[in-house]
Formats: sequence, structure tokens, C-alpha cells
Amino acid sequence: MLKERIDAETALKLFLPHVKPVTRCEEVPLSEAVNRVLARDIIASRDIPPFDRAAMDGYAVRAEDTFGASPENPIILEVVGEVEIGEKPGVEAGRGKAVRVATGAMMPEGSNAVVMIEYTSRVGNSVEIYKAVTPGENVSLKGEDVKAGEVVLRKRTVLQPQDIGMLAALGTTSVSVYSKPVVAVMSTGNELVEPGTEPEIGKTVDSNRFSLMAALKELGCEVVDIGICRDNEEELERTVKTALKKADMVIASGATSVGKKDVLPAVVEKMGEIIVHGVAIKPGMPTALAIADGKPVIMLPGFPVATLIAFYRFVPRILEHMMGFETIRRKWETVKAIAGRRIPSGSGMRTFTRVILRESKDGYVAEPVRTSGSGILSSLVKAHGFVIVPEEKEGVEEGEKVEVLLIRPLTRCLNAQNIQESRLN
Amino acid sequence: MLKERIDAETALKLFLPHVKPVTRCEEVPLSEAVNRVLARDIIASRDIPPFDRAAMDGYAVRAEDTFGASPENPIILEVVGEVEIGEKPGVEAGRGKAVRVATGAMMPEGSNAVVMIEYTSRVGNSVEIYKAVTPGENVSLKGEDVKAGEVVLRKRTVLQPQDIGMLAALGTTSVSVYSKPVVAVMSTGNELVEPGTEPEIGKTVDSNRFSLMAALKELGCEVVDIGICRDNEEELERTVKTALKKADMVIASGATSVGKKDVLPAVVEKMGEIIVHGVAIKPGMPTALAIADGKPVIMLPGFPVATLIAFYRFVPRILEHMMGFETIRRKWETVKAIAGRRIPSGSGMRTFTRVILRESKDGYVAEPVRTSGSGILSSLVKAHGFVIVPEEKEGVEEGEKVEVLLIRPLTRCLNAQNIQESRLN
Repeated sequence: MLKERIDAETALKLFLPHVKPVTRCEEVPLSEAVNRVLARDIIASRDIPPFDRAAMDGYAVRAEDTFGASPENPIILEVVGEVEIGEKPGVEAGRGKAVRVATGAMMPEGSNAVVMIEYTSRVGNSVEIYKAVTPGENVSLKGEDVKAGEVVLRKRTVLQPQDIGMLAALGTTSVSVYSKPVVAVMSTGNELVEPGTEPEIGKTVDSNRFSLMAALKELGCEVVDIGICRDNEEELERTVKTALKKADMVIASGATSVGKKDVLPAVVEKMGEIIVHGVAIKPGMPTALAIADGKPVIMLPGFPVATLIAFYRFVPRILEHMMGFETIRRKWETVKAIAGRRIPSGSGMRTFTRVILRESKDGYVAEPVRTSGSGILSSLVKAHGFVIVPEEKEGVEEGEKVEVLLIRPLTRCLNAQNIQESRLN
Repeated sequence: MLKERIDAETALKLFLPHVKPVTRCEEVPLSEAVNRVLARDIIASRDIPPFDRAAMDGYAVRAEDTFGASPENPIILEVVGEVEIGEKPGVEAGRGKAVRVATGAMMPEGSNAVVMIEYTSRVGNSVEIYKAVTPGENVSLKGEDVKAGEVVLRKRTVLQPQDIGMLAALGTTSVSVYSKPVVAVMSTGNELVEPGTEPEIGKTVDSNRFSLMAALKELGCEVVDIGICRDNEEELERTVKTALKKADMVIASGATSVGKKDVLPAVVEKMGEIIVHGVAIKPGMPTALAIADGKPVIMLPGFPVATLIAFYRFVPRILEHMMGFETIRRKWETVKAIAGRRIPSGSGMRTFTRVILRESKDGYVAEPVRTSGSGILSSLVKAHGFVIVPEEKEGVEEGEKVEVLLIRPLTRCLNAQNIQESRLN
């Protein structure tokens, strides 16, 4: 019954097309949403920023009024008031007028630029302007970060902290995510007893179930503990049936190798189809992958090291498939890429440039996210990672090799038919 | 008041010695223990396995009785019974006797080796033995995996799934871990409002608090939401004091840059000491790190991208320091090493060899864990990672370069005085 051993990658290629996605959704508060998988596209309900605001401390003016200003020939404007952050402007900046503004303050009606405080001098109710500004200069425009109606986050994104921030900025307090896959875990073996009891002679404490439940929890699953099942055909059949009713996937350890009579695969074969039985990994060889009731039933060998090695070789991939994406690289790993454009940096500063990765025939290309500053939250939501330019380096030239530190896992969406859409998430 | 900008690494070097470890402990059930930090050494209370057991299917015998056996000259032994897995042997294997055993079954009294079933032939109540065995052959000896009294897991280990399995195998149902660091998060700014309300003109929805709380949760902290505080000296002072009472660390965003009047650092300076103010990272420059009431107070810039970049540059390191270790490499990353001994592999099988890393002047050396098989759970608990030998390769020679896939983060313990013990965990 132990079929021909195949390598693990071939085994997954045979098995994954049988794995159906979990489509149950639930609404969770933002405080619970990190690392959950988004169940629908998020469309911005409003502009961010919601109004034009000052990007610098200084004076809000009509840019036209400052044309020609220089230290030698300052232009003098009348100061008609002040706008603090968070307050609705009580004044207008008409022709020849200036309004004192703080960074982040709403721009008063009539103004279209901010003269930085450094290029001004206050004299009573007037201000001397030493430098001309162009329309829009030192202003964060309404909708510059996010425009109402824009798709901000795509379905099947694994939500990162920056995404949670974006959801908050859009006024959201809860979000629709796919339910965590529910995984039932059982151990099989007549010799097994629960920890916490002094085992009788000849018995062994079950450890696999606890390793597996911990690993599944770490991978973001909900776990159902099915307990220990004896190596007995009727009891195994009854237990696997119960487990299948309670969960999206069943994982059993023990009872798969020839030595232990292979009773579990025989039982599962009656309920469904064994797709893989025996893989060329050591330890882990007697692993079997089956589908019963339309759900994966993963049979792992009983020896604890073999159990965990086989688990990590197969189960994370199967779980991702159940969630409709596959991870190419994990968060905080680095990938090598080519700079798609010049990446400027702050002189003497370690500069963190947000980049989007795209795939090309020569590997990844890192494109800096266009942004007007560090207030632009969408730059982090769009970015796959950072190119970190060290203090001593003056930017990165187009075509130069760079390392990108990923700030979200690099994933590729699968559609419901398991055919790659091949879109990096 | 914005002191000279220093690079982030120097900032941490100045700041970390002021950070005190969290020494509160709590007992958690095994099901909650993954990724928690062990608060004391775990000493094995029993041997694993708890008795000599058969490592193969076959016949338990006295090795001496088989000497000289060959296919041409089989030795005939009397079969006096059978031992199933999980049962106490009802028979002894005296001189000239054999007992049928299954893999994992307890060895009967008198026997000291197992002849594999393949080298035997049953004839009624007798068995023909075609191959001699040496004492101990095909037997897992009592205590081979773990010996009673042995230190199995060290204090400050970040518990991995395999460690949870080991704790279960030792009969444990709960474990003493350090309490999660409690971190209070507040946003400051007169312009800020909570998500879920339609903001008045001029106001901005607070997003930083939600990004930061999500990031902290992901890093394993308990989070206290302090809410939004206005840019007002008395209110800030009151709020920071409340936050310090509730938490081990306070993180505030906004109100640190010159543009926003720098009121928060001024307030915190009255309560403690500002160690760092201004770092050479872009974005993230106005970050300030202080100690008040003996606890870290981290002041991050208000612009959301700068907030998160500064957060990730400093806070994970500070949190680790609070837990008494530092991470050198994360789980599932690979490190390059030199094979310290020859690493054998299964022919035609992708072989996962458990290795321990040690530091040498030439970098990491990977030493295979000595183990008699995949039943040895302690091999995974001791191992830092796997050397994966591909199907087509026949082992790895001593001195060869290898890549090690880490199965636990590579950490180094700090003692309470923040002086490196320099022990890889």
C-alpha cells in the first residue's frame, strides 16, 4: 500500500489542486486584524488628507503675491490671522494677505502655498517674505495620499500594521477577513497517554499533538484538539469522521508507516482519496496526503522529528492554498533587486526608501514609491519593502543592485480555481 | 532642544543599558506557550524513552543467542510471546527464547537486541534467525532522548513548537514564562479624532495608534490603549503619568518635532531623562528615547511613515532587551556555515539533518546533532536548524559550505546587567 515515493514538491503539485479555499468570512475589530487575510477589496470612502494642509510651518499665501521676493527685495504682506492644527481656519488669505500656519494645519481659503518660517520675518502685523513660492509649494493637497473611490487594499492581502493604520485613517473600525482555517489535530497509537499523568509501564506521553497545535497556532489557525485515538479501525473511522465535521483540515500523527500496520491510510481511503503516500524526505517518508469529505486529511509519521519535518514541508503550503495565496518571501527577509529609477537619499542620514517590486526577466526591479513625504501612509501600504541607503552613500543610481527589506510577505494570489493570477501582493 | 543627531545604532547603544528587564512571570498552559519566553531552566523529571523499546519490528532476543547466525546456518529460537506497543510485556526472553515485538514496544526482560523481521522466518512456535545482532542493536535505550535531571531547555528560550512537544513529553501541562511586556500607546495632537466618527473640518483621523498597536501585538506585547492626548503640557503630563502606571513602556507618536513645539519631550524631561533626541534616519529623524519612572518612554514623530520606520528601527530591540535576549537571526532565515563534521544523507531522499551552530573565527560551524533516529525529540530541541541535503547529493563533507535553515530564532542571552553572556540560544 505504500505507493512509490515521490519528492515533496511533486507531492504538493499533485495535492494542492484538490485543496479548496476557505471562503467563510467574519468581521473583526481593527485591534484583532493584524495578520488576518482581507476578504474583500478596500475602497477609500474619503480623501486623505481630507483638505489641503500646510506641509511646513510658515505663512499661507497666494503664491502669486510672492513672485520676485528676495532677501534684498522682500515682499511685505499683512498677517490677518493664524491657523492651528486641527482647527477650521477663521480667516481668508486674500490678495496681499498672509496667515500664520503650523505644519498639518488646514490651508485658509484663498491661499495656495506656504512660505517656510525660515524665509520670513514678522514685523508687527506684517511679515517680510524673502523667497518666492510656486502654487502648491509646501502644501499637502487634498487626496494626495488616498483619493476617495481608489482601491487601497486588495482582497487576500495579509494585513500588516501599516494596513491597519490605513484602515483607521479611512475611518474604519472593523474589517471583513477570511475566517482562520480550523484544523483538527489527533494522535494515534495504543501506547499514547496524555501529559500530566504518570504513565504506566510501556506507555508513552503524547507529544506530537502539542507540537502540532503550537505550530498551527503560530501559523494563524484555529485548532481543535481531537485527542488520542487508538490504532483500531472502527475507532479511527469514527474519530476522523468527527474531526472532519469540526474542521477544514484534519492532521493525524502516527499510524501511517508499515510498522504500525498502516491502519489509518486504509481507513481514510474508504472515506475519500489518498493522493500521496510516501515522500522522498528523510525523516518524514511515510507521510500521506488525502482528501475526504472534500477536506485535506494529512497523515504524518509518528516519530516526533519526522512529524514536525513533514508538517513544515507540507502544511504551511496547504494552509496558504486554503487562504488563496502563496508566499514567495516572508516579511523581514531581503530580496535582491535592481533599482528601476534613481533612489535619492538624505545626506548623512540612513534613508529608508519605500519601493514596489515588480518581476522582470532579470529578476525583481525596485521602483521607489512616488511620495511627497513621510505623511503619506499609502506609500507604506503600496510598498513591498525598503531600500535602505546608508549614511555614507549619496543615493542609488538606476540599474544599481539593491537589497530590499520586505515589510510584508511577498505573496502571489491564487484564484478559486487554483490557477495563478501571478500578481504580487 | 533637538540635540545632535546620532545614528540609530549609537542611539541604541546609549539607550539599551537604561532598559530594565521585565521579571514578572506567569504560568501558562502548553496550548498558550508558543513564542513565549521561558522564565526558568527546564530540568527533565524523567527519562525519555522511559524504558528500552524496540526501534524496529522483529524479535527481541539476547544478542548472544544469535551469534553465528546466517542464511545458510540459521539459529532457531523458541517464540514465547508477543509485545504490542503500549503494553507491559507479559513474558521474558530467556536464553534460547525470542519475543515478537512491534516498533516502539517495550523490550521484554532478558532481551537486549531486536532482529529485524526481514532476517527471520516463523515456523510454528519457533523462529529462524538469519543474521546475528549485537547487544543494543535496534533498541532505543531508556534515557537515550532525554535523561532525568538533564537541563532540556534554558531560561529565556523563545518557545518553539518542538519545545512545546518536549514539555508535553516530560509530562508538563503548563510552563513558567515571562509576562508579556505591557506597552501603553498614545497619540498626541489637537487635530486628531478617533476613527468611526465623521471628522469635522480641519481634523484628522488618528491612524498611528492603530498601526503601532497592531505592530506591538504582532511582536508579542500586551497593549494598553491610552487614546488621543491634546498638545497641552498639563494634559500630556497627566496622560504620560497614567500610562507609566499601567505599562512597562510608553510609546507616543506626534509632538516630538520642532514644528509641533516639542512639548512632549519637554514634559517627559521633567519626569525623567531624555537619552536620545534626534536620530540620523530619514524619515524618523525627530525620534526621542527617554527613561521615566525607570521605564522607556519612546517618542515617535507624528507622520505615519516616519512613525513606523522609527518604531521598527528601535522598539523590537528595546522589547528584546526587556525580555533579556537579543535576536541575531529570525526563524526560517538561513545562515551560511561550514560543516563541522561529515553530514550523511539518505540516498535519493531529500534529507533534513538537524544541526547545532557554534560561532568560530571563520563564522558559523554546523555540527550535526548526534541522534539514533527521528524519534529523538531532543534533537529538534537542541538544534538551531536544518542542513537540507538534496536528493542528488550524497551527504556533505566536513569543511564544506552549507546553508542552515533556522528552526528557532538565533538569540543571544543578556544577563540582568545587560552584559552579553554571548551564548547562542
